[in-house]
Amino acid sequence: MTYHQDITGCLAENCECGLSAAELEDALRRTVPALPILSRKRDDDSLPLLRLPARRDDIARLKPLAAEFARFKDVIVLGTGGSSLGGQTLVAVAPPGRTRIHFMDNVDPHSFTLLFDALDPRRTGLIAISKSGGTAETLVQFFACMAWLDKRSAARTIVITEPKPSPLRGLATARKLRVLDHDPNIGGRYSVLSNVGLLPAMIAGIDVAALRRGAREVLDATLAAANPRDAAPALGAAVSVALNERHGITATVVMPYVDRLAHFGFWFRQLWAESLGKDGKGTTPIRAVGTVDQHSQLQLYLDGPADKMFSLVMLAQAGKGPRMPAKLSDPSLGYLAGKRMGDLIDAEQRATAQTLIRNGRPTRVFALERLDARALGALLMHYMLETMIAAQLWGVNAFDQPAVEQGKVLARQYLGEKGRAKAQ
Amino acid sequence: MTYHQDITGCLAENCECGLSAAELEDALRRTVPALPILSRKRDDDSLPLLRLPARRDDIARLKPLAAEFARFKDVIVLGTGGSSLGGQTLVAVAPPGRTRIHFMDNVDPHSFTLLFDALDPRRTGLIAISKSGGTAETLVQFFACMAWLDKRSAARTIVITEPKPSPLRGLATARKLRVLDHDPNIGGRYSVLSNVGLLPAMIAGIDVAALRRGAREVLDATLAAANPRDAAPALGAAVSVALNERHGITATVVMPYVDRLAHFGFWFRQLWAESLGKDGKGTTPIRAVGTVDQHSQLQLYLDGPADKMFSLVMLAQAGKGPRMPAKLSDPSLGYLAGKRMGDLIDAEQRATAQTLIRNGRPTRVFALERLDARALGALLMHYMLETMIAAQLWGVNAFDQPAVEQGKVLARQYLGEKGRAKAQ
Repeated sequence: MTYHQDITGCLAENCECGLSAAELEDALRRTVPALPILSRKRDDDSLPLLRLPARRDDIARLKPLAAEFARFKDVIVLGTGGSSLGGQTLVAVAPPGRTRIHFMDNVDPHSFTLLFDALDPRRTGLIAISKSGGTAETLVQFFACMAWLDKRSAARTIVITEPKPSPLRGLATARKLRVLDHDPNIGGRYSVLSNVGLLPAMIAGIDVAALRRGAREVLDATLAAANPRDAAPALGAAVSVALNERHGITATVVMPYVDRLAHFGFWFRQLWAESLGKDGKGTTPIRAVGTVDQHSQLQLYLDGPADKMFSLVMLAQAGKGPRMPAKLSDPSLGYLAGKRMGDLIDAEQRATAQTLIRNGRPTRVFALERLDARALGALLMHYMLETMIAAQLWGVNAFDQPAVEQGKVLARQYLGEKGRAKAQ
Repeated sequence: MTYHQDITGCLAENCECGLSAAELEDALRRTVPALPILSRKRDDDSLPLLRLPARRDDIARLKPLAAEFARFKDVIVLGTGGSSLGGQTLVAVAPPGRTRIHFMDNVDPHSFTLLFDALDPRRTGLIAISKSGGTAETLVQFFACMAWLDKRSAARTIVITEPKPSPLRGLATARKLRVLDHDPNIGGRYSVLSNVGLLPAMIAGIDVAALRRGAREVLDATLAAANPRDAAPALGAAVSVALNERHGITATVVMPYVDRLAHFGFWFRQLWAESLGKDGKGTTPIRAVGTVDQHSQLQLYLDGPADKMFSLVMLAQAGKGPRMPAKLSDPSLGYLAGKRMGDLIDAEQRATAQTLIRNGRPTRVFALERLDARALGALLMHYMLETMIAAQLWGVNAFDQPAVEQGKVLARQYLGEKGRAKAQ
């Protein structure tokens, strides 16, 4: 396995606010029905995201497009939420020096002015992603970029959207743009392993076959587990839900000690919030970064309300990076002499986990030997499975987001009123 | 005033989970003693951050340094937490095309490899900031950068640290680097208006006199208010604390609808968490960005646990940005025809505020006519004052962070053990 999950810091025997053996056992028992349901959904293809890890046919089809777009100096990716955060997560682990990918996930006019001033339209490709094809922000971004690219637009634009008729598909067809189908049965926040995440990742030089291999290893191990305790995502879901129900844990902090996983935190945050935050249930996902947030949030985490669980993602970094001088004349710096930068972040991640646990804050640790596409694929699949299993425990639908419709309707109404007010 | 605070969406008459008139009145009464205390601390200089808004002498002294460093193509700023987040917040509103400022606030070896590969040491300046002069991360970053800059280091490095002897000051003296004093009585998270924030900001082209003018307007208006209801930061603190104490609000979401304020959210997050998260008290600050998080967090915000208050920062953007085609053949796109990008974000921010309030989620609105240095200075001072007043209401010390020491000691111990283990 590419990662090791350690939940012992969430147990009462190690951590004051942790779970008793009986509480964990009970929650694990409740996960038992979830695993055969997932197996069935994979086998009858009713949850196609569970088929993606084993697929390679679609990668072969994406390859020539990715190679074509990798020749651009810059590629703009339009889209928001699930159409953007997966790609951002993958591209963050890409090697340097390749095509620069600009994820534009807002409609702030100033940001588009800066973007258009900085890029050369002759050397820029465009990918516009909206599952429904009707996302107002993406359509507005699309019109702005079409005008900027002008006549070149047709040759250098790819649209990813569902097969059904939609505003974005209509615009793409009228402009003779290339269109890739967004699988209608893969929700945006679960689309990172589909063409939505893969196309930007391939342009940026990610080994997406390895990404899927890592995801498949976690999926297979989870669905093959005889006992949910041996299925890391089921164990994680049991701990998360039981800490909420039994110990008043209302927020869940994901804190990687790896800069390249800073975007992973934003991806997780959508996955968890949109899938589980309904019917008054769910916990609030919080994205943190170690060591940075030791100097920002740790005071609150240790001494504020005991309402959070922590998941630290640790990477083996000891012995890596710039080395400190072997001799330091200041004796108070002796602890650094001859050490490497990686030794410090290694010591800090372990110290923070230990300090949280000693202060009674339930803490889980993910340990990675290395951070490559395979390990990232494993982490992504772990969290997608953990989220779906947690949804079953809380009795909510992991795949809808009914509450956000109201705001969309109101925004259109305000936009219309504005227009009418001006027209008078 | 450069911003308008509207708390009516936090009141029971408009919002199901809001404050009754009596609850607000009671909390406001409790803020009354805080204002004369702040006035006294400004006048006797025991809280020097309250003197900064009126000062210009230090700006004059920073000017030649900033001009010198503005000739570099790149400037690296070392430091973490309060030594970094204020500068990041200011530089985010800088005009494009100036010296690029790289805030390195972690000790991830991979990030330093990328940085050193991307920059030219002959065209790069360095600013190292640590209030205590003993922050392990900053020292390790400093050693790495000194080795990379090599002989050029002395001429192109500025250190900002307290006047007292410390490892960083000792290293700077031995290497004949220029050192600026960090005011010992201004904590890192309150240092954005001091040389810590100002030097990077000036290099990036920010009008720091306007920044301080905006801060001064808020400070003066707050301390001159006859009634705390007329002092925006006192009113904000009263609402925040009363919602926590009376209505179980445990998290506070700050959500600007402006990309350039995305870093402001991280600055606020440290200010609020480190100042108030102690003795089991405080609320958890959450940084969000509109419209992005409508597509990530809004489902949870509207339909998850009712445990959050919201502060939306709205900028007047209607009529700005790229314009949509006046005629759109798809009738379902009629709401966008002839509109500008700024019209959409304007409609969305108002729709989200209204939707949150209608769903019983207490929501405050900050409205900005424009986002410039003066408006940013006002927002920063608002939140520093609100935080200090909230600390008085909760009965905690806004200026210490006692809990983080334990982790630091343990990290040094782990680092030492590692060294010993290897030496065997």
